[in-house]
Amino acid sequence: MSLSLDDARRLDGADPLRGFRDRFVLPDGVIYLDGNSLGALPATTAARLGSAVTEEWGQGLIRSWNSHDWIGAPARVGAKIARMIGADPHEVVVADSTSVNLFKLIVAAVRRQTGRGVIVSEPGNFPTDLYVAQGASALLDGVSLRVRPADQIIEEIDADVALVMLTHVHYKTGARHDMAAITARAHEKGALILWDLSHSAGAVEVDLNAAGADLAVGCGYKYLNGGPGAPAFLFVAERLQAALQSPLTGWMGHAEPFQFGDDYRPAPGVARFLCGTPSVLALLALEVGVDLFNEASMATVSEKSQRLCSMFIDLVEDRCAGFGLQLVTPRDPAVRGSHVSFAHPDSYPIMQAMIERGVIGDFRAPDVLRCGFTPLYVGYEDVWRAVEIIHDILASGAWRDERFRTRSRVT
Amino acid sequence: MSLSLDDARRLDGADPLRGFRDRFVLPDGVIYLDGNSLGALPATTAARLGSAVTEEWGQGLIRSWNSHDWIGAPARVGAKIARMIGADPHEVVVADSTSVNLFKLIVAAVRRQTGRGVIVSEPGNFPTDLYVAQGASALLDGVSLRVRPADQIIEEIDADVALVMLTHVHYKTGARHDMAAITARAHEKGALILWDLSHSAGAVEVDLNAAGADLAVGCGYKYLNGGPGAPAFLFVAERLQAALQSPLTGWMGHAEPFQFGDDYRPAPGVARFLCGTPSVLALLALEVGVDLFNEASMATVSEKSQRLCSMFIDLVEDRCAGFGLQLVTPRDPAVRGSHVSFAHPDSYPIMQAMIERGVIGDFRAPDVLRCGFTPLYVGYEDVWRAVEIIHDILASGAWRDERFRTRSRVT
Repeated sequence: MSLSLDDARRLDGADPLRGFRDRFVLPDGVIYLDGNSLGALPATTAARLGSAVTEEWGQGLIRSWNSHDWIGAPARVGAKIARMIGADPHEVVVADSTSVNLFKLIVAAVRRQTGRGVIVSEPGNFPTDLYVAQGASALLDGVSLRVRPADQIIEEIDADVALVMLTHVHYKTGARHDMAAITARAHEKGALILWDLSHSAGAVEVDLNAAGADLAVGCGYKYLNGGPGAPAFLFVAERLQAALQSPLTGWMGHAEPFQFGDDYRPAPGVARFLCGTPSVLALLALEVGVDLFNEASMATVSEKSQRLCSMFIDLVEDRCAGFGLQLVTPRDPAVRGSHVSFAHPDSYPIMQAMIERGVIGDFRAPDVLRCGFTPLYVGYEDVWRAVEIIHDILASGAWRDERFRTRSRVT
Repeated sequence: MSLSLDDARRLDGADPLRGFRDRFVLPDGVIYLDGNSLGALPATTAARLGSAVTEEWGQGLIRSWNSHDWIGAPARVGAKIARMIGADPHEVVVADSTSVNLFKLIVAAVRRQTGRGVIVSEPGNFPTDLYVAQGASALLDGVSLRVRPADQIIEEIDADVALVMLTHVHYKTGARHDMAAITARAHEKGALILWDLSHSAGAVEVDLNAAGADLAVGCGYKYLNGGPGAPAFLFVAERLQAALQSPLTGWMGHAEPFQFGDDYRPAPGVARFLCGTPSVLALLALEVGVDLFNEASMATVSEKSQRLCSMFIDLVEDRCAGFGLQLVTPRDPAVRGSHVSFAHPDSYPIMQAMIERGVIGDFRAPDVLRCGFTPLYVGYEDVWRAVEIIHDILASGAWRDERFRTRSRVT
């Protein structure tokens, strides 16, 4: 017999992260299961941005680069993220977008790997990862992208492979790679490894240095709650920092940017992977989201994430049996991230009907209903209620209404 | 005899742009001559960002990509900037930083120019332009950067030149290139041209299409008043859009980003030069700054800019004669931007003393005092008062105090 509403409430009552819910602003009547696409608004972001705009920019003007340490923000926020992903503070900076950071690190890694020209990834990886790898390969002589299904990655890594590039938790299926095992295999064969943590950081435990990872990137606007299009981060293991050169040699990555010299000389350390002037407002908004994690252990966050996901799977399979939903996400928490996907041929209109009822998840082409579980602000009762609403929609056929078929520009 | 305070006030009284001053928030006691480094805060930005955060992000959540047209912001704000630089609306997008956009366009241009491997620029160009060109050259076989003094650029363009890359108004000297003449020469020799408008857009008249320009980039946080590190823009002439490929093949530049296919296919038009997810908050703040220009003709803006600069030069040379200031900027308004630089061996402490007295300009290594004149919020009386303060500092030797010698991280 599946969990009752009372059971769910008891779980919320005992949840050590329960207090975080009030640290976010969420609309009334919404069960937000899309924090893996755009994280919710922290309660203090509006005030922080207000003072950044009014005081720091408006009153401080150009002086705030020093007096409010805007110039230090990429390293400062990077160091805070480092704690969440098993990195040292000086191994992470915030910069640009995930796509731009992928380009920097792919090119830097491949150029160092003389005599090796293959980048290995998996088909169906998040599109921008594959697109950027394709763009980088086209620029570099003798470099090509080879995609192989997840379960063949390990054997695919051979002496031709310069770089293995994988998303730790798959954006659609929620499947999680074994970071330590794949990293070890890459190193055994002389390849470098680049992990995209966009669907991991802030939701599942990540320990880059324990795994011996070389490179990583990740997203600021999902579980880190940095706001729409928040800046991304990148990680370069200390041992590699001096050996890798960014192809995007902008002035913020220069050893002495304010000397205004004509010749590029990379900064020591990970700062060489900065490029142009960062959006300070966007960085400060991201910092608010990241700071919330100061007070939560990633182990606790990860544990709750798995419980929420398991509960959702169990309830959907119980309450919505017979309506054609097929679980896409691994059942085993050990190989899963913090979102759960079900396939259904009519997933687009079903998701639109869910959104109209206040259960906001994502449709992902071609046929996936994806629900993300953000441990800081989603509770067990939310999961219970969400499944009841999904059941209503499926049982009533409400999703068959024509209005749910109109495709939006962003899906 | 030089201009009196009464004369300056009369000029302010007759200034058709005078009303714009109240559309900005400026600190009391400050004469802000650094809008060319970080533009001042528009009066409505705080409220706009407040509603973007509270309503669009907080309440709309992921839905706002459609319902508030976040997805359309790069093209929408780009089209607004297009009006200010003589481009068509579909020739400009807002994306990334100036540095990243330089990389995209340099690589795209050089890859199209089969058999030509030279990028021409000038020494002392804004560092990031040179650095990015160096980084791009290092990636591409047979490509090199050749720098030649401004007055030799025209003759330097020959059949080996793939791309001429220049900053329209020099960040330090304020010298302005003849865009039409250099563009024509480049085309005559089969080269493409890329203009960096960072110190032009929003201050001097620019007519990219009248000049036949191919490519351009520019900055959002200077004269466009988009906030610290605001996103940048890029221009690709319509005739070239289909032929040029961005090396940064992120998902936002894909023809169908929400199909989530594995293979990159560039969007038609300038949207192919988008890369990752843009910072929506930063974009919306920039839009406020750009919208202010809707109500001002660029001819009027440019005319006032030149008057302010000329007045500053005249007053400094009159009031501060004998204190060792040497004019760096061209005296002729036709070949000048919207800032004026004087060299002085002690320009660093002099600028610090000016800032303490509320006259905020920039020091630029090694010996330049730079003052920018932003026509929307700097008036003639401001210029008069600034020069009196500079005179006081020089005449009293107040700048010799030790405290003005401490170098900040950002200068």
